Amino acid sequence: MLNNHSGNTFTLNVSEWFNTDKSLEMADFKGRVVVIYAFQMLCPGCVSHGLPLAKNIQQSFRNEDVQVIGLHSVFEHHDVMTPKALEAFIHEYRLTFPIAVDTPSKYSHLPETMKAYQFGGTPTILLIDQSGKLRLNHFGAVNELQLGAIIGSLLEEKVSQKEKESVSVDETLQAGCDENGCSI
Amino acid sequence: MLNNHSGNTFTLNVSEWFNTDKSLEMADFKGRVVVIYAFQMLCPGCVSHGLPLAKNIQQSFRNEDVQVIGLHSVFEHHDVMTPKALEAFIHEYRLTFPIAVDTPSKYSHLPETMKAYQFGGTPTILLIDQSGKLRLNHFGAVNELQLGAIIGSLLEEKVSQKEKESVSVDETLQAGCDENGCSI
Amino acid sequence: MLNNHSGNTFTLNVSEWFNTDKSLEMADFKGRVVVIYAFQMLCPGCVSHGLPLAKNIQQSFRNEDVQVIGLHSVFEHHDVMTPKALEAFIHEYRLTFPIAVDTPSKYSHLPETMKAYQFGGTPTILLIDQSGKLRLNHFGAVNELQLGAIIGSLLEEKVSQKEKESVSVDETLQAGCDENGCSI
Amino acid sequence: MLNNHSGNTFTLNVSEWFNTDKSLEMADFKGRVVVIYAFQMLCPGCVSHGLPLAKNIQQSFRNEDVQVIGLHSVFEHHDVMTPKALEAFIHEYRLTFPIAVDTPSKYSHLPETMKAYQFGGTPTILLIDQSGKLRLNHFGAVNELQLGAIIGSLLEEKVSQKEKESVSVDETLQAGCDENGCSI
Repeated sequence: MLNNHSGNTFTLNVSEWFNTDKSLEMADFKGRVVVIYAFQMLCPGCVSHGLPLAKNIQQSFRNEDVQVIGLHSVFEHHDVMTPKALEAFIHEYRLTFPIAVDTPSKYSHLPETMKAYQFGGTPTILLIDQSGKLRLNHFGAVNELQLGAIIGSLLEEKVSQKEKESVSVDETLQAGCDENGCSI
Repeated sequence: MLNNHSGNTFTLNVSEWFNTDKSLEMADFKGRVVVIYAFQMLCPGCVSHGLPLAKNIQQSFRNEDVQVIGLHSVFEHHDVMTPKALEAFIHEYRLTFPIAVDTPSKYSHLPETMKAYQFGGTPTILLIDQSGKLRLNHFGAVNELQLGAIIGSLLEEKVSQKEKESVSVDETLQAGCDENGCSI
Repeated sequence: MLNNHSGNTFTLNVSEWFNTDKSLEMADFKGRVVVIYAFQMLCPGCVSHGLPLAKNIQQSFRNEDVQVIGLHSVFEHHDVMTPKALEAFIHEYRLTFPIAVDTPSKYSHLPETMKAYQFGGTPTILLIDQSGKLRLNHFGAVNELQLGAIIGSLLEEKVSQKEKESVSVDETLQAGCDENGCSI
Repeated sequence: MLNNHSGNTFTLNVSEWFNTDKSLEMADFKGRVVVIYAFQMLCPGCVSHGLPLAKNIQQSFRNEDVQVIGLHSVFEHHDVMTPKALEAFIHEYRLTFPIAVDTPSKYSHLPETMKAYQFGGTPTILLIDQSGKLRLNHFGAVNELQLGAIIGSLLEEKVSQKEKESVSVDETLQAGCDENGCSI
């Protein structure tokens, strides 16, 4: 699903970070395309497909162009998918990109970022453009060629922006997505 | 390898076409990104990776955005990789995109298009931009995310061109490629 | 490694069972080949290769011929790989064969069955023959054809035993294994 | 399909051999399990699954236990799947086991061995036991664990035969097969 929050800047609601010395803000990544991979450590599809893809994205692009961030969005088995368990998981799976714990809610089994942006489940991939806006919010399996093409078009915005500060890729994105959904 | 034929329009040297009623010209595809997959029917890497990727590209993008063309560039076993054998191969492998036979040379074991553009072997993938220029000439395995990103940036040129008719993606392409080669 | 406990019957040291109404004993499986898959829920190789293979074995043979048993042999991250976490893991990964928790040791980080039979790590696959003896103790990746062949030869012992009660497959097993190790 | 030619010895009807200095006879392989892989060089399933499995069998067992033989059983596109084309194919795909050309028929598009043993198509795998009898005749995809188990039980016959010259594995084979077909 393409959530076109055209006016609003995307924000993460985070209770704890791993693989980083300090709390990160989305504003730290201005000028880069940010790929946020929401997962749960006990989600089979996340482990078999989502996280390998996140690693692949990390290795396929230069870090100054594309920043990968993991987001542990726990909505079930809260008592065993604790930050401590996540820490062991990160160690065993050799994940090296920054990983945020999606803030647990007091009133819902859904954590705060997941609830705010209405993830369809895990894994969910979010693409944040260079100006900090959410451009893709996709739940489930992805087509790597299509995902690459969207990342490529978001990267291309950099060139255009440098040149004239006002380009829209909305038409291009329509290749894969429309108001109702995204074909990836 | 990135062959930056900045001034010249790419041309195919074709002796025969399959999967099309008439001979095709590159000029027919102005406004689309063209992906040309050079292969040999008895090349194991072409069969296991190259042609499945070509099919995947065909299915992942709209035909009005991206045109896939196969190019049978025979440089060995000429006596058995004949157009007649290719026809059976195309039938059995259910290939539906247009496929050209690279014109055999009278003086070389390399066919004419392969020789003119110095393919490293098969499979070789060529990316032709919307104005008909060769932008990528890559021999061997490819990273689908990176390939998708380059296609995405070439597609994005359409938007920009429509708007101002003079954009370059060279800086973006440098993400994967430099003077000496291409990291895909 | 082939541990030829020719004189001794294999025993599991178990603190808790899942996917079964009652505690199981190896004696319950006399007349079947028993495949014991030792794993840890946070072991990447177990999740990506070991458990899918265990499921595949379960589906490839009749349950009256081959019994698959999982063994959770935790030797690291004890505080997060608890029986409660394992229960969530079993649920999410849709594991349906009986799964035993290898009894934690008071004096070692290695659990009791793992220590007694000197597993090389996880995943470890154990093959128990129809008379209850350990015939294969293999750590790491396996070749499915070779594993199938050993299971086939252990199943074949049934026929012979029924007929004359005194066959040895040791010579056959040497195809894959010798005193020093097993080529699987 | 299990063709239980209990009384007859299996024979290949061959017009030409590759990867061997002399014509081979099934009698040359007495005492070994023989795996015959029938394929066509332009059959996609043979190239993607059948021949890699044949290579895997060749590498997974000792040649004195299991002999792999390829059989080029051409029943379509006869004019382009010639022995000369096959020779190029064998070279490019680095096949090293002996490969026989199934004798073309004067009166049928099916070659002689294929017709005699009623292959369902290509790829077809045949298992010949140590006494030269056809034990498995299976068309299409195979489960490697089950195939390994049948090979293992056929290998086990060697031990028994040496000891008492009169063992049947029919009961064991019923694990995967029955009168009507074979579940591999």
